[in-house]
Amino acid sequence: MRRETLDDNLTQLQAMLDEMAPLVVTAFRNASTALLEDRRRLAQQVVARDPIIDGHRAAIELLAVETMAVHQPVVGPLRSVVTALRCSQVLERMGDLARHVAEVVARAPEDAHPLPDQAHPLFVTYGARVADVAEKAASVLRTRNVVLAVELDADDDLVDAAHREVFELMFGPDWTAGVPAAVDTALLARFYERYADQAVRLAEHVVYAVTGGTPDQVPI
Amino acid sequence: MRRETLDDNLTQLQAMLDEMAPLVVTAFRNASTALLEDRRRLAQQVVARDPIIDGHRAAIELLAVETMAVHQPVVGPLRSVVTALRCSQVLERMGDLARHVAEVVARAPEDAHPLPDQAHPLFVTYGARVADVAEKAASVLRTRNVVLAVELDADDDLVDAAHREVFELMFGPDWTAGVPAAVDTALLARFYERYADQAVRLAEHVVYAVTGGTPDQVPI
Repeated sequence: MRRETLDDNLTQLQAMLDEMAPLVVTAFRNASTALLEDRRRLAQQVVARDPIIDGHRAAIELLAVETMAVHQPVVGPLRSVVTALRCSQVLERMGDLARHVAEVVARAPEDAHPLPDQAHPLFVTYGARVADVAEKAASVLRTRNVVLAVELDADDDLVDAAHREVFELMFGPDWTAGVPAAVDTALLARFYERYADQAVRLAEHVVYAVTGGTPDQVPI
Repeated sequence: MRRETLDDNLTQLQAMLDEMAPLVVTAFRNASTALLEDRRRLAQQVVARDPIIDGHRAAIELLAVETMAVHQPVVGPLRSVVTALRCSQVLERMGDLARHVAEVVARAPEDAHPLPDQAHPLFVTYGARVADVAEKAASVLRTRNVVLAVELDADDDLVDAAHREVFELMFGPDWTAGVPAAVDTALLARFYERYADQAVRLAEHVVYAVTGGTPDQVPI
């Protein structure tokens, strides 16, 4: 048996991240679908599958630590290993946030919509924007396309706008769904926003690995 | 100049964690005080100081990575280094949550209490319980006292009870503070709960480092 090289390990780390990221994107898509379509079973699945995502993170952490201990990488390769560690953390956190969304759906009473009807149209748009950001961030992670990462800032502004619209609706005179519904809606809106925010951070870590800088410093 | 040994680095990592943890405990105490006493300036300070906490995390990460690369620790020492990495992440997240509390206070309108009067007594108790958990977790980190870590589970139950009481108040018939206040209160209640939850995780990481197991497996 030949001993694994540093390059083997770096390739393996990247493959593990590329395996993990789609799970996290899917978790959010499913949580969002479960919310919009009142699908409790789907929500329960997202919750039940979160430990898989956590397991991916643990496996990546283990290999990253082993790689550092065995190969003592410096400069570029060291940056890649540290980036893999960080990306796995961010992905785990995104998975947690998707799970939080799913938990709201899973614990809604049988006879109630987890999302008030009034907020439904806003969350259709909001969910699609957040899913786009996540998709794009996963693609930055896979392709190392730094220019795509720069686009994410503008996409995140759209997410923030959707977030604000939800609060304007709840705090406006037309909100008739009451306090408990407002509380759930506010938490959901926040989970969406945090999830997208973490996706942007994910892309930033990749940019750091590629260029040593942040997206602001990338010439386009 | 003598080269630093693995033991030097492990000692240094522990010292850095012991330096970081009190900042995170104080951030929460100050955020909670700012909330209860309507002190915007204090809240702004918590927000302004969060980058210091983030800086501690970055410094710990750097030394942990360097330690792994240079000394290739195995078994016990490797566990210590990985634990330091994880603890620094958890502490940073606790700092973020304290900042989130402070941000609610900092952005409240001049003429309004950030916390509705009705919720005030509950948050006095709630804040004290969360601060106790954080204090105890920091002490577990400092002293490696595994028995203390086991106590944290019961303390966390008290935190969860306080969390539930806030929601019972908001969803009950006596809530007169309206929707926007309920939304802020719900977010605050969640930040408190998440902060305590992360403190419990912090202690769990220490237990792992000491025993290789989780608190459930510690014989007392």
